[in-house]
Amino acid sequence: MDKLYVIKTGGNIIDDEKKLSLFLEDFASIKEKKILVHGGGKTVTAFADKLGLQQKLIDGRRITDSETLKVATMVYAGYINKNIVAQLQAADCNAIGISGADGNAVLAHKRKHVNQNIDYGFAGDIDEVNNGFLTALLDLDITPVVCPITHDKRGQLLNTNADTIANEIAKSLSAAYHVELVYIFEKSGVLYDVDHEESLVKKMNREEYKSMKENKIIFQGMIPKLDNAFSALESGVKVVKIGKAEQMQNLLGGSAGTSIVND
Amino acid sequence: MDKLYVIKTGGNIIDDEKKLSLFLEDFASIKEKKILVHGGGKTVTAFADKLGLQQKLIDGRRITDSETLKVATMVYAGYINKNIVAQLQAADCNAIGISGADGNAVLAHKRKHVNQNIDYGFAGDIDEVNNGFLTALLDLDITPVVCPITHDKRGQLLNTNADTIANEIAKSLSAAYHVELVYIFEKSGVLYDVDHEESLVKKMNREEYKSMKENKIIFQGMIPKLDNAFSALESGVKVVKIGKAEQMQNLLGGSAGTSIVND
Repeated sequence: MDKLYVIKTGGNIIDDEKKLSLFLEDFASIKEKKILVHGGGKTVTAFADKLGLQQKLIDGRRITDSETLKVATMVYAGYINKNIVAQLQAADCNAIGISGADGNAVLAHKRKHVNQNIDYGFAGDIDEVNNGFLTALLDLDITPVVCPITHDKRGQLLNTNADTIANEIAKSLSAAYHVELVYIFEKSGVLYDVDHEESLVKKMNREEYKSMKENKIIFQGMIPKLDNAFSALESGVKVVKIGKAEQMQNLLGGSAGTSIVND
Repeated sequence: MDKLYVIKTGGNIIDDEKKLSLFLEDFASIKEKKILVHGGGKTVTAFADKLGLQQKLIDGRRITDSETLKVATMVYAGYINKNIVAQLQAADCNAIGISGADGNAVLAHKRKHVNQNIDYGFAGDIDEVNNGFLTALLDLDITPVVCPITHDKRGQLLNTNADTIANEIAKSLSAAYHVELVYIFEKSGVLYDVDHEESLVKKMNREEYKSMKENKIIFQGMIPKLDNAFSALESGVKVVKIGKAEQMQNLLGGSAGTSIVND
């Protein structure tokens, strides 16, 4: 089975031109098959502000109304995605930028909420990843670069969480590849103490996670990420790695960051 | 040899939601292999205005400065491209939206001008079409939807004329396919009298074109389009068809529009 890295990178890299460029050089140098999933960072908010769009919040959550979706599509699928692809091409990585609509890669539906009288906007929950399409691209030695826009196969684009897209892609390809799912974020990995980078949890299985949660050692914001990681392992992903962009080579090699494993 | 339609559609369709939707339904229903190349319409200008970008002109030509390129990338590769793809997917046409950077599809270089002291901005002139990549997509029964952004393989995106992209793609694939290049525009085809739609030139070869030019029958704006058409024929494209979106079925069938042929 070929190894496949599904690597998700977020706002702190996307928003920093220099960090992004170094990260993409590192990414391009990975010899194995790979997929990059990127989030959006602050560019959408900055653009929405420039255009005078008012941010809508319901219960403190930002709502993707049709104007915000338009801007998100422009920024994620257009500006960010194509600049990443152009930089990867320059580094001799034959990348292709896609949304979930392209090749019907990621099918989703508009999120429904408990209170049906409120329209929470164009947020998409994933139904299916088209692994045949992604495998066909990988077979052609093409590296997919996936932006956080999906579609519902009825003509509607949807804004979708990039962590979730990476997770679902990793799961769906785990039957055909030895998949390692990698979350690049701003910390060195999972930390015992969120303020001390050296308090790194190098390896964690489900039991350890459970006891850390019970002892409230796990930093609040990490819980959805870790829940997703364990759900990925249950669906056949071999290991989930979490760490910093600057340490990506060591993160992939296992000498940096946190490895989330079955046992 | 399989038949391949390379169809270019422009601003008058892209800017009109209803016309675009009808056009895409017609396009999706084409049984043969096909590639869609789209221009941008007025959306870029409208957006640039909203963002307060000042339009720069040199010798009456609009200049793509870095801010305009950013907006063009967002609108062409993001908003327009992904909305077309989502609509085609809804019509069961398995489309993929690409720029020239994706899969290294269209390689270009920044245009140089006679006056080297003036920077004419990020306009790209095409060097090469990656026909291997496009053929691989077509072999997977995937329909490429190409936006007018290319790259220079050194990390720079470039704004490139959509007519020219369609032309170069058609030429480059004419060794592997029986290529028909179709230009969708606002008139019924080439007209003897630009004010009378019924004065249609149904068929035109190079000799007829030459004599029409000499007799100043050809409408000025058509000359670059027709020069391109004849250059495509010289490079192996079988026929170039020019006509209206509303008549696309008949245009492809040969009962509407103008057919530009070798003899």
